[in-house]
Amino acid sequence: MARTNPTYDRLAQGYLFPEIGKRTRAFIAANPSSKVMRLGIGDTTQPLPPTVISGLASGVQKLAKIETYTGYQDDSSGMPAMKTALLERYKAMGITLDLSDIFVSDGAKSDSANIQSIFDIDSVIAFQDPAYPVYVDSNIMAGRNKEKFVYMPCTEANGFFPSLPKSKVDVIYLCSPNNPTGAVATKKQLKEFVDYANANKAIIIFDAAYSAYISSPELPRSIYEVEGAKSCAIEINSFSKEAGFTGVRLGWSIVPKEIVCEDGEIGKLNRLWARRQNTMFNGASNIVQEGGVAVLSAKGQEECYKVIDYYMGNARLIKAGLEAKGITVFGGVNAPYIWMKTPNGMKSWEFFDKLLNEAHVVGTPGSGFGASGEGYFRLSAFGIRENVIAALDSIQKNLKI
Amino acid sequence: MARTNPTYDRLAQGYLFPEIGKRTRAFIAANPSSKVMRLGIGDTTQPLPPTVISGLASGVQKLAKIETYTGYQDDSSGMPAMKTALLERYKAMGITLDLSDIFVSDGAKSDSANIQSIFDIDSVIAFQDPAYPVYVDSNIMAGRNKEKFVYMPCTEANGFFPSLPKSKVDVIYLCSPNNPTGAVATKKQLKEFVDYANANKAIIIFDAAYSAYISSPELPRSIYEVEGAKSCAIEINSFSKEAGFTGVRLGWSIVPKEIVCEDGEIGKLNRLWARRQNTMFNGASNIVQEGGVAVLSAKGQEECYKVIDYYMGNARLIKAGLEAKGITVFGGVNAPYIWMKTPNGMKSWEFFDKLLNEAHVVGTPGSGFGASGEGYFRLSAFGIRENVIAALDSIQKNLKI
Repeated sequence: MARTNPTYDRLAQGYLFPEIGKRTRAFIAANPSSKVMRLGIGDTTQPLPPTVISGLASGVQKLAKIETYTGYQDDSSGMPAMKTALLERYKAMGITLDLSDIFVSDGAKSDSANIQSIFDIDSVIAFQDPAYPVYVDSNIMAGRNKEKFVYMPCTEANGFFPSLPKSKVDVIYLCSPNNPTGAVATKKQLKEFVDYANANKAIIIFDAAYSAYISSPELPRSIYEVEGAKSCAIEINSFSKEAGFTGVRLGWSIVPKEIVCEDGEIGKLNRLWARRQNTMFNGASNIVQEGGVAVLSAKGQEECYKVIDYYMGNARLIKAGLEAKGITVFGGVNAPYIWMKTPNGMKSWEFFDKLLNEAHVVGTPGSGFGASGEGYFRLSAFGIRENVIAALDSIQKNLKI
Repeated sequence: MARTNPTYDRLAQGYLFPEIGKRTRAFIAANPSSKVMRLGIGDTTQPLPPTVISGLASGVQKLAKIETYTGYQDDSSGMPAMKTALLERYKAMGITLDLSDIFVSDGAKSDSANIQSIFDIDSVIAFQDPAYPVYVDSNIMAGRNKEKFVYMPCTEANGFFPSLPKSKVDVIYLCSPNNPTGAVATKKQLKEFVDYANANKAIIIFDAAYSAYISSPELPRSIYEVEGAKSCAIEINSFSKEAGFTGVRLGWSIVPKEIVCEDGEIGKLNRLWARRQNTMFNGASNIVQEGGVAVLSAKGQEECYKVIDYYMGNARLIKAGLEAKGITVFGGVNAPYIWMKTPNGMKSWEFFDKLLNEAHVVGTPGSGFGASGEGYFRLSAFGIRENVIAALDSIQKNLKI
């Protein structure tokens, strides 16, 4: 008799965004004439720029001719042109990697969910609180004991970057620029974690999916800008927010061969991730990788950063608009997320309903990202400008606080 | 101190195809003037037909305009147009499904590797022997005890379709048309497994990735053609071999809500797979799904089946060529794989080296697919016609048996 995996029953009920969708649909059904404005899910809205479209289109046309047709890739870690372009990007940042350190994938969500597979099931895992729900959920689904999870609160008091865990941990998830708080770690802050990890042979999983939104030159876009990180950190990144690939699907992970785990075998973590990916994944789409190469070209970068500037224009408007309403906000400077304190200490879901009912604006309750997110609310800068302005107008006029 | 996952150390050393690549490269290095002909990996070689190229190209162009741009999908299970087209395909086969039974993915490899996650870690799993290595490897990596695996030998004596397992099992992987043996299960053979599964509340994972290669009308292309399968079987399928999407990446799985596991909760397996996919995967590429819709159009099907006919022409040539050499072959009639008995009872890898050295032809050792594959050898029909003919000529002239 087949039995279902009981670890799934230990997950929190449903995923955050389906619940948001449900409440939004209920509101629309009850108020069919109201226009609902979405500042919730971090979904991109702007079309892909010409150079990227050309790259993708050329990827399609290559498949139409026998001379340029390609099937399975030699291994699942990515096409040589794609991996070389990523290598060059890191090189330009002063970071030396080996081609075999780079694993191209279908996105940061898959990688941040699957990476836990290469660690022992009894590992003690530390998470920022609040955090992207996939880190915790994937570890629960894999069968790890959630009683042993270590949560590192990110609060107004610590500037939304955690202190080192008090108990000993094996694996630490860090995300900067942070989803959901919009906080960006400094080199000094990351150095403290890197030193801890090297001293304790712990591993940092660094989610840099929003690194393209950093404009302050002193803030690190990669954890490998911090000395010592190559022996203790895995970095995950994505084309979703840098290039509008949320639906196109492309990302990458760096697992340096220098990383050393408890057993001291150099390169083992890299080898295990290669084995995981080669066994359970068949590579990102060849068409999509051609688009990725175009994103990383000089012209592609120039065009993609225009779109990023547009989104950051939204972020500035949202920040200013909320502040004008007397609301305390964080993030939104080197990150596409605005993390607002709910007015009058309201609970996050209570404010969700209030904002939807009064201003017809959908956001994301902070408590959906963890206990320390309670009393906060996430707004995203990825909207269309007119909608962002309309949402802010409505908040200004209709939200009663 | 982070520790690596010890389950990975229990995997057989390396994946089959990297070893083939290694030996092939060594031969080429030692014999630089020899032309090596590959009939090994099941990789497609023919360009995509015009209707499919148009679908993909239109998918790219939609992303260039704000009106048609799409980002994240509502859920990871696929675009409505894609799911509806699949629903219609099953309907035309007399199979009624619900849209929510269908999960579009980036390919059958991912799905057949990930599906084990929704079953209890202590499940007793049965595999055909020989079989696609991903089934066994993914279960080992998940932490299942390989001492408890049940292997169902597929031999010349049973026509390469297994008898029911003698001990009680919970989950059964079946693949038809079979990779690697090219054997195709009859309705009667599948019915025996379906009845067993329903009687024992076991679950069948049916890999139908090669179903497009079935031309005999009496052979089932879907397990749901067999009465009772909807309450016990998950079906996995792919566009890789039907439409040449080996590099493009698109597949789907069917998890009917009717399936009942031990706990008797109807729809639970469907709900768990939805949770797994929504948490750990962000959907197949929107561009690629537009290509999938084109594949499923009447014109797309017509064009794709011309390519399938071409490959099956290769299969007939390989079968006839080997038989003319006095070699015993199986498969290759309703399947793109030819399963040959090695001459004079040679071991599979011994024959690999002999075929490479004497005829300069690369194939796949049967023992790489399991113990019962020893003494067999897999050839693939996915080559370019001229190369297939050249390989057969070389075998005829140069292979000493």
